[in-house]
Amino acid sequence: MQRRRIFFNAFHMNCVVHQSPGLWVHPADQMHRYTDLGVWVELAKLLERGKFDGLFLADVLGVYDVYRNTREVAVTQAAQIPANDPMVLVSAMAYATEHLGFAFTSSVLHSHPFPFARQISTLDHLTKGRIGWNVVTSYLESGARNVGKSGLPPHDERYAIADEYLDVCYKLWESSWEDDAVVKDRRRGIYADPTKVHEVRHEGRYFNVQGCHLAEPSPQRTPVLYQAGASPRGQQFAARHAECVFLTGPTPQVVGHLVKETRACADQYGRAPDDLLFFMYLKVITGDTETAAQRKYDEFLEQVNYDGALALLSGWSGIDFSQLDPDQPLEYVETNAVRTLFQSFAQADPNRRWTTRDLARFVGIGGGGPVLVGTPEQLVGMLMEWINVGVDGFNLAYAITPGTFTDFIDGVVPVLQQRGLMQHEYNEGTFREKLFGQGRARLQKPHPAVRYRRSA
Amino acid sequence: MQRRRIFFNAFHMNCVVHQSPGLWVHPADQMHRYTDLGVWVELAKLLERGKFDGLFLADVLGVYDVYRNTREVAVTQAAQIPANDPMVLVSAMAYATEHLGFAFTSSVLHSHPFPFARQISTLDHLTKGRIGWNVVTSYLESGARNVGKSGLPPHDERYAIADEYLDVCYKLWESSWEDDAVVKDRRRGIYADPTKVHEVRHEGRYFNVQGCHLAEPSPQRTPVLYQAGASPRGQQFAARHAECVFLTGPTPQVVGHLVKETRACADQYGRAPDDLLFFMYLKVITGDTETAAQRKYDEFLEQVNYDGALALLSGWSGIDFSQLDPDQPLEYVETNAVRTLFQSFAQADPNRRWTTRDLARFVGIGGGGPVLVGTPEQLVGMLMEWINVGVDGFNLAYAITPGTFTDFIDGVVPVLQQRGLMQHEYNEGTFREKLFGQGRARLQKPHPAVRYRRSA
Repeated sequence: MQRRRIFFNAFHMNCVVHQSPGLWVHPADQMHRYTDLGVWVELAKLLERGKFDGLFLADVLGVYDVYRNTREVAVTQAAQIPANDPMVLVSAMAYATEHLGFAFTSSVLHSHPFPFARQISTLDHLTKGRIGWNVVTSYLESGARNVGKSGLPPHDERYAIADEYLDVCYKLWESSWEDDAVVKDRRRGIYADPTKVHEVRHEGRYFNVQGCHLAEPSPQRTPVLYQAGASPRGQQFAARHAECVFLTGPTPQVVGHLVKETRACADQYGRAPDDLLFFMYLKVITGDTETAAQRKYDEFLEQVNYDGALALLSGWSGIDFSQLDPDQPLEYVETNAVRTLFQSFAQADPNRRWTTRDLARFVGIGGGGPVLVGTPEQLVGMLMEWINVGVDGFNLAYAITPGTFTDFIDGVVPVLQQRGLMQHEYNEGTFREKLFGQGRARLQKPHPAVRYRRSA
Repeated sequence: MQRRRIFFNAFHMNCVVHQSPGLWVHPADQMHRYTDLGVWVELAKLLERGKFDGLFLADVLGVYDVYRNTREVAVTQAAQIPANDPMVLVSAMAYATEHLGFAFTSSVLHSHPFPFARQISTLDHLTKGRIGWNVVTSYLESGARNVGKSGLPPHDERYAIADEYLDVCYKLWESSWEDDAVVKDRRRGIYADPTKVHEVRHEGRYFNVQGCHLAEPSPQRTPVLYQAGASPRGQQFAARHAECVFLTGPTPQVVGHLVKETRACADQYGRAPDDLLFFMYLKVITGDTETAAQRKYDEFLEQVNYDGALALLSGWSGIDFSQLDPDQPLEYVETNAVRTLFQSFAQADPNRRWTTRDLARFVGIGGGGPVLVGTPEQLVGMLMEWINVGVDGFNLAYAITPGTFTDFIDGVVPVLQQRGLMQHEYNEGTFREKLFGQGRARLQKPHPAVRYRRSA
């Protein structure tokens, strides 16, 4: 069997510090200029030069205020605050590129599906079908309190909201305008056939949307759907809806198991193995020699900010790590959140005793995922270990921008290409076609979006 | 006293047919390509070449379904449906230009102020302070039913919602981050001073927002505020909040009276004459000779679509004009909405008997405002009639795009410039500084936004 090429996204965020607390002060890091459109356009062009599949933009709508019960560290360290909107960045980057996909994060708690679905459709039109959406259900209590809620709805209810939110979006994207509704007959003066445009008439538990979609069908209709559910409920959600699943873990064995589990789950929904791609989150640090790469890693690690790392970690887990002795083993920390985050890491090396300090270093340099260090040739070998357990591609986080990506594109990409593991040129078509193959511009059965589609 | 230069915006919308029903079929009209980012980038470059102040983007989030009690005509004629999102267009146009301002419409009923304020701040950063917001309270019942409401809230309540929405935004934009909160000290590793970042703690009747703004202060903080309130309540709202007031009317006398009224109203809020600019909505059709201009006008008028015009008019007024005999004088139509829309036109020529057909032609060619036809020299004279009654500038609508703007920029702009009535070069600074003068990057007292500002 011919091996499929490996997929690559750059993992980023419209902020100063995404997943490398402390490193914004590095002389080569440009993210202190994150408000400059030029930085983003240059990044997009760089990624397209490197034949990346997409730029994946994270987002939060709250602050990391669990650590020491204050947002003090997060603000001082710019740890995901300021955090600017990702969606409004896209059109400039799209205009400067031709093939790169753009997937951005938007929470089902923060915008109403009717205007949101229209924004997605608009961008899918403007980019000629290069849009992806990372569906999230939010994890910051502070984010919920910013939109009039007393707190986050319970975890499983957030997924119930997400299910209905997607239903509304699918109805708008897939069912409202038939494929041949738009006629564009300038001679007869008919733009569209109103008998082929339909109200969605959604009346649900959380949302109520009566009208037709305001956007005509875009190249992909539904954008490429990303999701990162790790909990059992999240895994179910991903298995049902996601086309690209975003995950991480300490070893190929652990991640391979997660992939297998989610694939089995997707199988229950009738979805074929080819319908889902698994993107592994990790960071890659490379250099001409092993020593040069290791030196770069050491230099980055030295600049990691301990408090900034724990501010992020406390926000993700809901646990205030400032309450713990930095050097005390963590065996007594037994909440669900930490289990979800680190159980797999603990399992991978059962004899290792993790301390808070270890976690801070781990999060500070890796952002919660593995860091691979080596020469381009060594790295290709390391990446293949994940591919061999069923991962399809990588969401590459950065230590510094654009340095981490420039290093990868100039060093590792040519080796991957030589070995036939990465594309030399882009395929034609939409983001979905580039990921899943020609003729798949739109979702296929048995994806739940398709059941809303009217036969033309 | 030296006369101030005249301001110009292009009035547009992310759709096929904005205010010229039927004209999308004109061979030179490009708006059937509205989903192509290139059309927008070229338009922005053209407007910057013509030294326009801004591009003003209208929007609706519902359909025009009052006429014949169906959206059939609107869909057939593409009368503001499809209507794509305006905000996501901006960054591409901003990247291709240096000075042009971008004002877009967003309704207080359709997005929560917390994420919306962040989107505005993000764009204000990315454009280096070139953003304006047209605050609207919505008028389409269908739009309200798309976001879970049983119908539009009553008119005056919509303004109460808008008042609170602006309060929330002002708190986020003006009070959350102090001017010197962002330190960016890479040597000491301090991005911002957390003691200078504040929660907004807004608990109101309609909105509840606890946290701090997620965006650091952008060049303008609050974007340039546009508003078009014509009702007494709307006029009060504009007098209090708006920096640019958008209005129209049949004659300079009528419009001059409206300007005077709103200025008097603003005066009661302590605002100086220089704090408000009045932008008159109209359309300009020009040619090398009077005959050529008139021929162009006649050609456009002939292509106006009667039903499309009445679909728009019925949506604006809430009256189903299909119920009326096209040639019956309109004296029996006596609702508030039609009075608001056309009373001033009726007053201007009390002997004229308006029929539905007249209204359709009037709306079809002018979109509800006057149409000026003539040579560049004649047009400068006509424009000055509005300037002389207190209007500061124009929101120029199009018959066709880019033709209407190309004609104006190549024909009328040079004449205006020769007479010292229009800028030859842009001033430096933000959109607000370009409109209101150097040193006014941000709002000044006694604008209500300013009272939320903390002294640095």
